[in-house]
This record gives sequence, structure tokens and C-alpha cells, in this order.
Amino acid sequence: LSGGFSEVGDGGRALENRIVDVVRGKNVPLVGPNTMGIYSASVSLSALMPIIKPKKGTISFISQSGNIGTNILSFGGEMGLGFNKFVSCGNAADIDIADYLEYLDSDQETKVVVLYIEGVRDGRKFMNVAKRVSLKKPIIAYKAGKTVKGAMAAASHTGSLAGSNKVYQSAFKQCGITEASTVNEITDLARAFLYLPLPKGNKVGIVTWGGGYGVVATDACEDAGLEVPELDEEVLEALDEILPPYWSKGNPVDLVAMMEGVIEGKMLDILDILVKSDGIDAVIASGYILGGINPTNQKTEGLATFYDEVNRNNVAKIIELMKKYEKPIIPVTTVADQRAIQRFSEEEIVIYSSLESTANILAKMFGRYKYLETHE
Amino acid sequence: LSGGFSEVGDGGRALENRIVDVVRGKNVPLVGPNTMGIYSASVSLSALMPIIKPKKGTISFISQSGNIGTNILSFGGEMGLGFNKFVSCGNAADIDIADYLEYLDSDQETKVVVLYIEGVRDGRKFMNVAKRVSLKKPIIAYKAGKTVKGAMAAASHTGSLAGSNKVYQSAFKQCGITEASTVNEITDLARAFLYLPLPKGNKVGIVTWGGGYGVVATDACEDAGLEVPELDEEVLEALDEILPPYWSKGNPVDLVAMMEGVIEGKMLDILDILVKSDGIDAVIASGYILGGINPTNQKTEGLATFYDEVNRNNVAKIIELMKKYEKPIIPVTTVADQRAIQRFSEEEIVIYSSLESTANILAKMFGRYKYLETHE
Repeated sequence: LSGGFSEVGDGGRALENRIVDVVRGKNVPLVGPNTMGIYSASVSLSALMPIIKPKKGTISFISQSGNIGTNILSFGGEMGLGFNKFVSCGNAADIDIADYLEYLDSDQETKVVVLYIEGVRDGRKFMNVAKRVSLKKPIIAYKAGKTVKGAMAAASHTGSLAGSNKVYQSAFKQCGITEASTVNEITDLARAFLYLPLPKGNKVGIVTWGGGYGVVATDACEDAGLEVPELDEEVLEALDEILPPYWSKGNPVDLVAMMEGVIEGKMLDILDILVKSDGIDAVIASGYILGGINPTNQKTEGLATFYDEVNRNNVAKIIELMKKYEKPIIPVTTVADQRAIQRFSEEEIVIYSSLESTANILAKMFGRYKYLETHE
Repeated sequence: LSGGFSEVGDGGRALENRIVDVVRGKNVPLVGPNTMGIYSASVSLSALMPIIKPKKGTISFISQSGNIGTNILSFGGEMGLGFNKFVSCGNAADIDIADYLEYLDSDQETKVVVLYIEGVRDGRKFMNVAKRVSLKKPIIAYKAGKTVKGAMAAASHTGSLAGSNKVYQSAFKQCGITEASTVNEITDLARAFLYLPLPKGNKVGIVTWGGGYGVVATDACEDAGLEVPELDEEVLEALDEILPPYWSKGNPVDLVAMMEGVIEGKMLDILDILVKSDGIDAVIASGYILGGINPTNQKTEGLATFYDEVNRNNVAKIIELMKKYEKPIIPVTTVADQRAIQRFSEEEIVIYSSLESTANILAKMFGRYKYLETHE
């Protein structure tokens, strides 16, 4: 757990090398130094510096930052994310990221791998292992130290040589690693890979409660490299029978404040029509998780109960539709309301609170689909 | 409130023109059509389609989307955002965004203006008004219909000609309008302009609990065009007296898991040293709002109470430091924990849950400072 090694400069590096000399060849693997410890759900071991109790699950996480790692481990549980193995690899003087990754390759309990990387020492070894692992399980990587000043900060943090960001991005792409662009995207992607089928194309159907969100969602998809296609004639005809005559007659589909749609479940029929269409590979559904109501406010208690009932029904149906058609459907709450998201954290569904993030995640999932298509 | 006008095509446009003919010249302003209504806290009027009760405040909001507008109005209250005037301008057949903006110019109760725009009809008029208003109060604009497909969706939503996104971005820049890049950034920016002093330069001091977050924050600042400068000699010396000998001795400042720093308030002394330095214009402080503890969990109740005490103390001190030195300090929770943010929603402070967003917001605030410097 101690610091004062390669992250503080040449003197520390010499000290670190001496430790490595002591353990090497003696079949004693060294984690760190400058680590915050390890965790294994399989053997109920939590040898971590902070007092946290991760939720048990199937995500394994190799992190060069102890704090980012243990924070995600700790808070991820509230978002329904369970972890299986975790290591804060610190300065990685002896065992490096590639070694941990190799271990996870054959670990049956690990379904998704997450990496927080400041610098990889043996790039070739890392790429060889990553290429093998990514064919079996998704690898999500966040690369820190992307900028010149960020790389300097990384050097004083874990003694890492952060290297050119372009080199890392190309390497990730070649190895089938999905890169998280922000720290919060790490958990968003992990949840997506755990619970959603991969989209088999980039054509997105959009349903929103209100035209404005439709415009925003369309922009977000186009920006992320996804397509918002015209709807097939038969889809339009089927929707015509449900929606009022003045509906937008195209993609995005605006539920045009159709309150009876909520009450009679017609909004779910609309979803069914869209998702089963051959011209649609994934659906973004805004307005299917109602929120913004404080459940502890007595005045709005009745409404909160009604909303919860609608939400539970919609969540169950969305999971059913995803299984039936093997296409991802992502409901988005149109306000940054974590309550609704946490409410369904144990379900096999992904709910986001940003249309822009949703489009980015779908694009990255499609990227993984394409990689597997061409490398399997 | 009714639809079926210019947003559905030429037939609807003819109908819309006839309504305008009826009201024009009779001193009857027409809101809409295809609107969700208006709201005014000054006269306690809520003539909106959805049953919501916005929190009273000083933000006024002109929105071409009724749903995005009323959603932000409704949920913003929980984030401590109070609103003064709101209009869902819909197709804006008679009164356009520029007219509403002109009204807000002289409205004493409006301190911050928010715009959701799909298309502006009279660009010159809009720019003239916006230039005048932005010198007095911040204008935040979200432009929807940025992409080709998004613009098509906007046309069928409010009959708007979305136009080239580059033209809008340039126009916003020329008028001193701050553009929100995502829907969630609308509220983040509104809160920042309400409660934070503008940074007078782009030099950011970073304090984090753990080196990893320091690397991420540095990358985020550099990406946003902010600088993470070396610290002055006197700052380094002052920090040397507080931090343990193995600290990183630079910016970002890592609190290196200094638990006594939390208990004895030394982390606030560190903040004071940074913020008062002439070489620092703004501070990003990660690790000052402790979170991730569920307050209703009996096992961790004691820890939650301790965390809350630390947080309250830190929030009070940060507000005090911002007033004293007239520089923005933004605490960031290192997990996407809205509880901690909502807990302090009534305080004159801004807490974000993403280092990347924080850097973007600071860069945009500095943009406004530069605009005012050169245009006043």
C-alpha cells in the first residue's frame, strides 16, 4: 500500500527495482507498490485500503488508480453493478496490466473487463492478450493522461509513461477494446455490455414524448455516427393505426402527448412495431420511464405510485422485447433523475439520463459488433 | 395548445397565417400555436399544459420545445433552480424568440436567460437583441437540429428551418451567448452563472483525493482549453507545511489519502492557499463532497452523519472563499451521486458529478468573461 517508489522519481525507482529483485523467480507475485489492494468475490476477499463492500457480480476491473477504482467499486453497487475481481495495480512493478488481463481471460466468473490505464509497459504483450480476451468478453478501457499535462500528472501518480494518445486509441481499436471517453462512461458501458444485446447495424428507431427530445436524439445519433432511417411503409401504416392523425409520420416517432397511450399501454405497441422492423437495429425510447416526482412528497404520492406502476410495466415489456427480437432498447429519462435509474438497477435493463450518452453508447456497442464480425 | 399548423406542412402553414392575420394590429400578442403555454412567477401564473409547480427564482426560459422546457422547469426545482418567466414559443407564428428576449431585457426579476432554439426566423433582429441583453445577463442557448436529420425532425416539430449549425455557433459567439453542448449542460450552466463568480483567467488549480482523479481532471482542463499551471514557489512552500513529504509537489495537488486532513480541516487550508494564489483563476476540488453512502442504511448511518458534517463544513467554507477571493471553486463528487448534489441545492454553490463537465463549464464561463472584457 505504501508510496514513495517510481512515482516520486529515480530514487524511488531504484527502491522499487530492489523489491522486484527480491520477489522475482520465487513464485511470489507482487501487486503494486503504490496500490490500494485487491478484491475477489469468488473467495470473499476484500483486501482494500478503503472500507467498502462491493456488490458481487461478473465485472472485473484492473485499475491503475486506487481511488477511481474503489470509488466505482463502491458506488457501482448502487447502480446495480456487481464486481468479481478487482486490482489496484499501482506502479505495476512486477505484474503488469497484461498479466492481470491474461488471468481474467480464463476466469469463468468474469463476463466484462474494465481497465483504467495510465500507461502500459509492454505494449506488444498487452495487445496480444487483449486481442485474445476481447473475442470472448468485452473489454472497456479508460485511458488517462491523454494530454501533455495529463501525462505529466500520470508520471507523478504511478510513474507511468502515458505515451501518445493516438497510439493508445489505435491499439485499442486493433484489439477490439471499447474506449470510455469519460469516467462516467466506464460504468455506463459496463452496464450496457452486461444487459443489452449488441446492435447488428447502425439504424436507430427513436420514440420520444415530445418533438424536442426527438430532435435532440436525432442530432445525438447522427453525431455518434448512427443512422436515423426513414421507416418502412408497413411500419408507418401500423403506427398510423395507433397514433392520432397529426403525428409526425416518420422517425423520430413523437408520442404527441398521447396520455391514453400511457394508460392503455399503446406506447408499448408502438415500441413493438419499431423494434421488430427489419429496418431498425436499436431503439432509443424517451418518455417510457416517468420521473421527476419525489416519492416522499405526500401531495404527489398518488402520481408517484402511478408513475412507478407505468415504469415497472414498461421495464418488464422492454426486457421481453429485447429478448424476443435480440435488439437493444434503451429507455432514457429526460431529466437527470437517478431515482428512476436506481429503482430498476437490479433489472436486466439499461436506463440513461442523457440522450447524447445513449447515442454514444449505442455507437460503441455497434463498434464491438463490427469488430467481432470481422475477427471471429 | 393545439397542433396541426406550420409543423405539418403547407396546409397547416396557411391556417397559421390566417390566425396571425386575425390578431396582428389588434394589440393581441399570439403565443404559439403548437405551444405548451406560459409561466410567470411574478404574477403567480402557471398556464402550462403539464401539471407542474416550478420553483420560483431568477432564471427565465424561452423554449421552442414544450416538453424539454417544462421538464427542465419541473425537475430543475429539485436541483435548486428557480424560474421566473417561461414560454413555450412553439411555432412562434406571431411573437418570435427575439421578441421574448427583448421583453426579458428589461425584466428586473430575470438574472439568467435560457434558450432552447430549433430555428430563429429573423436572424438579424435576434442578434441585435441578444447582443444588448448578453451584456447585462448571461444567455445560455441550446441549439437543436444541428445535423441534417436533426434539422428535418425540427421542421416537422415546430416548422423551423434549422439552418446551418456553423452559422448559429458563430452568431452565438458574436452575441456573447453561451452555447450548451448537451441538454443536461443547460441546467449546469444556469446554476454556474447564478452562483459562481466568473474566472478572470484560464489557469485552474486542481485538488483531488487520489492521483487518478488529478490525471483525469488535468486531461479534462487541457481538452477544454484551460491551463493547469505550475504552482508558484510560495504556494509550494505553504503546501509543503501541510502535506506529507511524499506529496506530488505540483498541480494537480493530490490529498494523498490524508484522512487527518478531513478531520482537522487541513484540506480547507490547502484550498485557501490555492485559491488566493495570483497564478490561479479557478479551482476544481474533488474529494470535498463525500458521497456514495446511502443515508437510510442503518449499518453505515454513523459514517453518513460524519460525511454530512464534513460536507456541510466544506460547502460553507467554499462559499466563503469564493466571496473573499472572487474566484470560482467547483467541488466535484467523484461518483455520479446526485444525493450529495441535491443536499446542497439551496446553497450558493455548484457541485458537479463529472470532472469533464466541470472543465467544460469553467471554460465557457471564462469565455463569457472574455466577451464582457472586450465588449463592455
